[in-house]
Amino acid sequence: MEYYIGIDLGGTNVAAGVTDRNGRLIVRTSLPLETRGAEGVTSAICQAAWAACDRAGLRPDQAVELGLASPGTVDPERGIVSNAHNLGLEVTPLAGMVAEALGLPVCMENDANAAALGEYVSGCGRNALSLVAVTLGTGVGAGAVLNGSIYTGFNGAAFEAGHMVIHQDGRPCNCGRRGCWETYASATGLIRTTQAAMEADQDSALWRYASELAQVTGKTAFDAAQAGDETARQVVEAYTSDLACGIVNLINLFQPEVLCIGGGVSRQGENLLKPIRAVLEREEFTRNYTRRTKICTAELGEDAGVIGAAMLPLACGQQGT
Amino acid sequence: MEYYIGIDLGGTNVAAGVTDRNGRLIVRTSLPLETRGAEGVTSAICQAAWAACDRAGLRPDQAVELGLASPGTVDPERGIVSNAHNLGLEVTPLAGMVAEALGLPVCMENDANAAALGEYVSGCGRNALSLVAVTLGTGVGAGAVLNGSIYTGFNGAAFEAGHMVIHQDGRPCNCGRRGCWETYASATGLIRTTQAAMEADQDSALWRYASELAQVTGKTAFDAAQAGDETARQVVEAYTSDLACGIVNLINLFQPEVLCIGGGVSRQGENLLKPIRAVLEREEFTRNYTRRTKICTAELGEDAGVIGAAMLPLACGQQGT
Repeated sequence: MEYYIGIDLGGTNVAAGVTDRNGRLIVRTSLPLETRGAEGVTSAICQAAWAACDRAGLRPDQAVELGLASPGTVDPERGIVSNAHNLGLEVTPLAGMVAEALGLPVCMENDANAAALGEYVSGCGRNALSLVAVTLGTGVGAGAVLNGSIYTGFNGAAFEAGHMVIHQDGRPCNCGRRGCWETYASATGLIRTTQAAMEADQDSALWRYASELAQVTGKTAFDAAQAGDETARQVVEAYTSDLACGIVNLINLFQPEVLCIGGGVSRQGENLLKPIRAVLEREEFTRNYTRRTKICTAELGEDAGVIGAAMLPLACGQQGT
Repeated sequence: MEYYIGIDLGGTNVAAGVTDRNGRLIVRTSLPLETRGAEGVTSAICQAAWAACDRAGLRPDQAVELGLASPGTVDPERGIVSNAHNLGLEVTPLAGMVAEALGLPVCMENDANAAALGEYVSGCGRNALSLVAVTLGTGVGAGAVLNGSIYTGFNGAAFEAGHMVIHQDGRPCNCGRRGCWETYASATGLIRTTQAAMEADQDSALWRYASELAQVTGKTAFDAAQAGDETARQVVEAYTSDLACGIVNLINLFQPEVLCIGGGVSRQGENLLKPIRAVLEREEFTRNYTRRTKICTAELGEDAGVIGAAMLPLACGQQGT
């Protein structure tokens, strides 16, 4: 049997898993990441890989390859990560460093692309030709697997769907644009909209779910709306409308067989999907087609990154060896 | 030598060309389309094909295949065109009808995709890995060639870039959405913005370039702005800003090696490209990358559709035979 190691590098944790060739997760482990910089991060990745292998009863060199999902800007061809500011990584040849330390070939991709691959291989896209995965978190992360390959563009930087403008001259985004989808559709965007509505309506039931603005989460507005609060209902409506706007844009452009939504907000399930589907029925270019994109929530949750990372060697060239 | 026939079916003309295997146009001809409906359109296509072959000194059956670029919704796999209202074609198996009449295998694609393929094979994308072509006309037509293949999505309907919303709740679009890119960035959108500015400013020099609103074209605002009119300058600024917004969206999503702009408005050349490049320098996600999308005007003009149609058999499966 062939084993693959997947590493999902986060800001506070390193998750590691061992899978079989079909992306079935055999073990998963997670270690806190308490260090910064190239050497420290490499060492933490190795420890996580060793821990996962240990639990699976393997030596790391019994694995075929290691796949690494990293935040920041990743150049998969050269195995370089840059702009991963909260890991202290500036233009770091991380794939090569991990490969040397473990004696294994290493493939690297950005975390949104790896998560999309995970869902494609063994999550909600496992029977689909193509999948777009959208993750609602601090920003909007997104990745696409088209015809079995991660779509990277000619320079490896494609699918920054969060930085698609849907409101020209809207909210400022730290990418330099205004009105980017992620300033509205991310969990952060929802929190911001909720806070603004609370400031404008001191009587709203929203204040019973978050007694101060700093306590607002991506769940606050959904909870208060469920309890019948009108201001909260308007927040949810504005949020799902902006989220759906970007989703229709992505469908009209990519027409993937499956589009899945992940991240904390996606735990709302049908509360979130129902209003999105209503927009699709009105606005999707292909609403009268028999073959339409299936919309769903992501299936693998936090495992998508680890599984997708482990499957990277099968979806892209070998690097960092 | 192998010959290919390309047909570009328009609302008022049928253009036909004969190319070699590399998409080099040997002859090109165009016949007026004076009929509607499946039989009439099929017959007009055959006449155009015969005329082009005649000028090239060939019989149609000496060609390897015929490629057909059609307006409306095209299902390339089944060779069916639908929703081509101004041709009177509702769910028509046009590829098969033409194949039977000419005794040749026929490939069909929508006209925007065929034009993108033409530019990719022998226009501004001939040395590129990937190309996105945007055509500014009545609407915004767009197509993408990624890794040598037209990107169609899982159901053949992908890349409706004109129906990407950039102004949530903006101008109504006949696709059912509001704020679609094409309602601002098409020639029609520019004319509309120009007319509104003229109505609001009766003293504008715009009135010297179009003495009544019905005479406004996609050139009017550019001409008056060039002559120093402030209102016209504002129209051009608003137009190029909306055009650039959608272009940055497409680059952030697709990262093609080349993005070309065609259609009448693109004859403005640097008048159009310069302000777009200024936006890219500020807003493109990859503005600090060494490998960035090249922006240019389309090279093949009206020949892109015919050449791309002729090259369809080399970029997609064989259909309608």
